[in-house]
Amino acid sequence: MSDRIRVVVDAMGGDNAPGELVRGAVQAVQGRENISVILTGKKTAIEQELAKYSYPKDRIEIVHCEEVIDTAEPPVNAIRSKKDSSLVVGLQMVRKGEADAIVSAGNSGAILVGGQAIVGRIRGIERPALAPIIPTAEGVSLLIDSGANVDARAAHLVQFAKMGSIYMEHVLGVKRPKVGIVNIGAEEEKGNALVKETFPLLKECTDINFIGSVEAREIPSGACDVIVCEAFTGNVILKLYEGLGAVFMEKIKGSLMKNLQTKIGAALIKSSLKETLKTFDSSEYEGAPLLGLKGLVVKTHGSSKAREVENSIYQCELFKKQKINEIIKENLKLN
Amino acid sequence: MSDRIRVVVDAMGGDNAPGELVRGAVQAVQGRENISVILTGKKTAIEQELAKYSYPKDRIEIVHCEEVIDTAEPPVNAIRSKKDSSLVVGLQMVRKGEADAIVSAGNSGAILVGGQAIVGRIRGIERPALAPIIPTAEGVSLLIDSGANVDARAAHLVQFAKMGSIYMEHVLGVKRPKVGIVNIGAEEEKGNALVKETFPLLKECTDINFIGSVEAREIPSGACDVIVCEAFTGNVILKLYEGLGAVFMEKIKGSLMKNLQTKIGAALIKSSLKETLKTFDSSEYEGAPLLGLKGLVVKTHGSSKAREVENSIYQCELFKKQKINEIIKENLKLN
Repeated sequence: MSDRIRVVVDAMGGDNAPGELVRGAVQAVQGRENISVILTGKKTAIEQELAKYSYPKDRIEIVHCEEVIDTAEPPVNAIRSKKDSSLVVGLQMVRKGEADAIVSAGNSGAILVGGQAIVGRIRGIERPALAPIIPTAEGVSLLIDSGANVDARAAHLVQFAKMGSIYMEHVLGVKRPKVGIVNIGAEEEKGNALVKETFPLLKECTDINFIGSVEAREIPSGACDVIVCEAFTGNVILKLYEGLGAVFMEKIKGSLMKNLQTKIGAALIKSSLKETLKTFDSSEYEGAPLLGLKGLVVKTHGSSKAREVENSIYQCELFKKQKINEIIKENLKLN
Repeated sequence: MSDRIRVVVDAMGGDNAPGELVRGAVQAVQGRENISVILTGKKTAIEQELAKYSYPKDRIEIVHCEEVIDTAEPPVNAIRSKKDSSLVVGLQMVRKGEADAIVSAGNSGAILVGGQAIVGRIRGIERPALAPIIPTAEGVSLLIDSGANVDARAAHLVQFAKMGSIYMEHVLGVKRPKVGIVNIGAEEEKGNALVKETFPLLKECTDINFIGSVEAREIPSGACDVIVCEAFTGNVILKLYEGLGAVFMEKIKGSLMKNLQTKIGAALIKSSLKETLKTFDSSEYEGAPLLGLKGLVVKTHGSSKAREVENSIYQCELFKKQKINEIIKENLKLN
């Protein structure tokens, strides 16, 4: 079948490995018939987890790997030295075309480094970019780049804008996504040297819906669909989002548990509040694609549970079905 | 009296001018006997507001100015052309030593530009830095720089770290404040070119308590007291803090007002929740000092009310009393 998709799930990566990774894989093959999953990692541990579920056995395969890359390991070194790790073996399968995509919740740096070094860039893409989605008051926005390649140049940011726009339109289904560049003011003359150089280049792009500068204040309200920035800035935005969200939740919980009265109140608002807070919980969404590579590499949160793994696998399916890389090559005039 | 302090309040700047500015000034002179305020702006409008209160008349003076700088005006132009504006006249008074400090809620760019151009830098300070405080789970942190001078060099960031540390210790009373540099990872080898260059320089500083890199995720939990960064990054952090806070509040309010049950629950938790949310409301705090100038310039929120204006005036008092600029000159070995 032409629309059959094969996704590697790095069963050893992340805080909840292998349990939640395996469960996510099982849910995905149960959920959609055209999905096959290859679990890379320690065979015995994976088999133990798989034994808990009933699922179509012909669509989950285990590829045993002796090694595991730890979260704290220096990425470049880990990728070079651990050839038989669940991540490296999975990336090699994508490179060789034995799999269409890989999902990993492991060492972020290693995923980024390994994605570039092993899977490789699309010819003409100067830098791949990590593009997580972040929740907003209106839905979600794509933040591109928040990866490990800092100090990008203007030409890189233009490619990020185009790739992000294509992904947002074809994978997340947003028509003519609004593309904005992160800036410290709304006017064109504002910004640092990089933004000032990039702004006019983006304005000239006829293939994206560039709406100009977006201040960080407007990001949470959903001012644009694709938020373009250099990776250092993107990382700050992404991490601050997570950190501030966590502190808010904790503070609110604390105020609800203050005394008997507030506890009664808390019981009454619980389900409504939970629903609201869920929209700001990144684990409800799929992982972040590393765009610009020959195959698809998806980085999920280190703490991701089965739900996020499952969603990430579906995202890989859509990525292939929508021929994202072909569109990127065509739109960016790459060959 | 030697500890008498004279503070200019730009009565025409900000969304709530002149009402809240005048009220803040009145509260400050009522609150502390050694404070005098000079209100710059339209005399008639200011007098109308002052007429609402009883206060020690000898400690509030009006200096009439014909012009007002609007929030949206291009800063450099505004400072150059509007010589008789409430902001420029106030800054001139600080320059001439007729006042110790100025508090303005007006056009941010104009305050930053005017502060540098009119009040002037302390000799040896290469760049002044705007240092707002941001709320955290533990209290507050000082974010330096979040001003208008982007693309700072490593030497600038070192001065920011030292000035921020002095301010945090002597004005906000934090002993041996922990100084961190915003980075995308905890390790010393992580970061963009600027951070990599700055990190070893900060490590060498024996006069600050440098704790290394701080990831944006850790900022809201209060990982360090003085958060050092380049202004573009600082602006993103500050604005995202505000934007995300506002969206959270709105979402939570929405979930509380959902139906009758949640409304009853909301009534029970209201006061506890309000108290919690107040700690994350920046208007509860004082304004942001522009550090490194010969006199003190404090920028409050455009939306600031009397409370923030009053607190900012007290902050000016402490700044003078603690001889912050003298300590800066001494510690940074400037003359």
